[in-house]
Amino acid sequence: MKFVVIGGDAAGMSAASRAKRNRPELEVIVLEQTEDVSYSACGMPYNIADAERAVEDLVVRRAAVFRQKQGIDLRTGHRAERIDPGARTVFGVDADGKAFELPYDRLLIATGAAPLFPDVPGIDAPGVVALKQLQDARRIKALLAAGPVKQAVVLGMGYIALEMVEALCERGISASMVKPRPGLLPWLDAELAEKVREEVESRGVGVHDGREIHRIEEADGRLSVVCSDLTLEGELVLSAVGVRPNSDMAADAGLALGPGRAVAVDTRLATSDPNIFSAGDCADAFHVVTNERVWIPLALRANRAGWAAADNVCGKPTEIEGVAGTAVFKVFDLQVGRTGLTVAEAERAGFSPAAVTIKSRSRAHAHPGSSTVYIQLVGDRKNGRLLGAFMVCREGIHRINAAAVALHANMTVAAFAGTDLAYAPPFGPVWDPMLTAANQLVKRL
Amino acid sequence: MKFVVIGGDAAGMSAASRAKRNRPELEVIVLEQTEDVSYSACGMPYNIADAERAVEDLVVRRAAVFRQKQGIDLRTGHRAERIDPGARTVFGVDADGKAFELPYDRLLIATGAAPLFPDVPGIDAPGVVALKQLQDARRIKALLAAGPVKQAVVLGMGYIALEMVEALCERGISASMVKPRPGLLPWLDAELAEKVREEVESRGVGVHDGREIHRIEEADGRLSVVCSDLTLEGELVLSAVGVRPNSDMAADAGLALGPGRAVAVDTRLATSDPNIFSAGDCADAFHVVTNERVWIPLALRANRAGWAAADNVCGKPTEIEGVAGTAVFKVFDLQVGRTGLTVAEAERAGFSPAAVTIKSRSRAHAHPGSSTVYIQLVGDRKNGRLLGAFMVCREGIHRINAAAVALHANMTVAAFAGTDLAYAPPFGPVWDPMLTAANQLVKRL
Repeated sequence: MKFVVIGGDAAGMSAASRAKRNRPELEVIVLEQTEDVSYSACGMPYNIADAERAVEDLVVRRAAVFRQKQGIDLRTGHRAERIDPGARTVFGVDADGKAFELPYDRLLIATGAAPLFPDVPGIDAPGVVALKQLQDARRIKALLAAGPVKQAVVLGMGYIALEMVEALCERGISASMVKPRPGLLPWLDAELAEKVREEVESRGVGVHDGREIHRIEEADGRLSVVCSDLTLEGELVLSAVGVRPNSDMAADAGLALGPGRAVAVDTRLATSDPNIFSAGDCADAFHVVTNERVWIPLALRANRAGWAAADNVCGKPTEIEGVAGTAVFKVFDLQVGRTGLTVAEAERAGFSPAAVTIKSRSRAHAHPGSSTVYIQLVGDRKNGRLLGAFMVCREGIHRINAAAVALHANMTVAAFAGTDLAYAPPFGPVWDPMLTAANQLVKRL
Repeated sequence: MKFVVIGGDAAGMSAASRAKRNRPELEVIVLEQTEDVSYSACGMPYNIADAERAVEDLVVRRAAVFRQKQGIDLRTGHRAERIDPGARTVFGVDADGKAFELPYDRLLIATGAAPLFPDVPGIDAPGVVALKQLQDARRIKALLAAGPVKQAVVLGMGYIALEMVEALCERGISASMVKPRPGLLPWLDAELAEKVREEVESRGVGVHDGREIHRIEEADGRLSVVCSDLTLEGELVLSAVGVRPNSDMAADAGLALGPGRAVAVDTRLATSDPNIFSAGDCADAFHVVTNERVWIPLALRANRAGWAAADNVCGKPTEIEGVAGTAVFKVFDLQVGRTGLTVAEAERAGFSPAAVTIKSRSRAHAHPGSSTVYIQLVGDRKNGRLLGAFMVCREGIHRINAAAVALHANMTVAAFAGTDLAYAPPFGPVWDPMLTAANQLVKRL
């Protein structure tokens, strides 16, 4: 049997490796359009922050290892362009521009996502970059090395934008952020989002939300981002306004798409064609709270879905759990986390949400080094169920995992409030901040 | 109605405060034999570590606040000695040695626990101390201040022993630990316990397990702890070999006792006498994994049980969840945590346990500052259920809470392995160490 994988990053290489482990006799062919496979995309901002570190440090496993030790037919520089599901064949072009066609028995689409760019004049100027693939990191580090880059403008205020602002500051670059809509991290409770804004501004970063971006002008290697009543200047502009799934090839092949135009998959990762699977940032998932399809492209899901797709391809029937949308990031000294639904998302999903935001401490009463912990919990008035948790702190962000597990278990807020969470003075107050929040929320449900 | 509380620490004062909030007209009388109420007992080692900090910093709320602002009739220096359940009366002695008798409608026994001392000659020598009450902390700090204390011997190797060894080292004191039975933290997997031993020994602490303690000799203000083939010397000996519930008064009143001679209570915190409740370190609990009675005296349970007892006294019927035995502590730069059952405990409870121990990282591939995370997970071969989790790390101990919630939810190891836990490079690998452990354990069940 021939198992063809399109895309050689997290989901694709997880699937290829797993398939070979499951069934060493299987012919596993991976088509990757770049020369990079299996790297830590999420680590790129931290690598960029350090001029001394090579981008290649981010490579988790080299192509040669996949080829020689794992027996995977890994074809880098191979760009898949079209799938014919009837003929079970992938068509594409190799690094030399030569067309190829490749039949398959089972296919995995693991094409990932691509960065979005604002649709404004000048967005294609040299010096305007995005960060999605390893070659983007190389390009950014090359620009910084060629420098001098003294100022940078980041378009967007999501977690990648914030991680990159931190990385740029680490490199001694003065950074500012701009976006058309109001609100830094609009999914975050206003009080919590304000703490993130304060942290970012305290490092000298300009935060300009609610500013329409009109155009980008380039002159003498300097870029001007012209916004409403504001022009931001720099030698580098980073577009971090979001991503879209690379699903055009799947759509052209007639496969069903889900939310955000991600490839729709079932709990076995099968698409609407039973011979074609999809995993990673290009595919959708079911949400554990709503049971509805969502598109939340994150690394753990990509790896997990890659494994599960391979198991199913190999005749080991495997269904995977949905996602809770658990995500954490660091920006300067702040830690930010979320799992489950915001109030707005809960309303849209038909729940009757109530929320509390509490302020607690990261360590016990009178323990040195304690800092403030902010938690918002969201619950359902109808049946008392926990719907979501949001957290901003300076230590202890792994607390968010307790709420994530509670979401998977369909726990009520009252049951969550009754859980036996850890306590010791260096690690928190007697009542863990999650419990304090749950105790407060119970009263409002 | 008259609500009498015996014991003015975590459980007792939580109950008294809650009862007054619930029903301001209620007469709430607290009998506390010392002058200290509502202090952070768990914070004592950290306070002792710092010569500059006053012991009084550990007081969370002062007696005057309870009396004047909360309207609680708080009688410090009042030692309860006997309960007559038939006459609903407590008998005791006040600070002046005057006998008192106090009728009650509802009674809460919140007498806590008392430190154990090894039964060896010389254990009553001056300079042999324990750490349970605030007055113990004062005594130890006074001994250290009067000094010089250059060497100290700690009897026992539990978490209080380890926290105190760290505190003594902070004070520049050379410490050693000794216990008769082999094994530092015998409930911890051998590989994990070895990491704790290495950490402690790397700070110059002598760890002498498996050494019978024969006697303590005192000469010229120096103490010699004479053990098998070993004599340890110091100006201070700390007994940290465990605690026993202060349940004699309850037993004399004919109340049923549970494991470890703790006062047996139901999920409403009622004892075998419906007018008498018990909460805190003197009372037992149900274990969420076994559903059997256990005695695990910890602070969160004491506070939670105090609240629930007060609610029940006030006519707000409240049942509380069992305990998972979740506990964490820090020793030097190590963080140690547990929740649920060890393999041995699981066997005793009739499960068919399997366990894995894995080694993972605290941060992502190639992320600076990463350290090793060790996790042991225990599951049941019969029905796949998660039974326990144990962790040793240098950061991220709050991960243990995810497993604690899974225990409360009766989750299988497979379901736990499918949860959407947080990932970002500064906070862990893509597969959270808990998930890596769960993925491994699934294969063994």
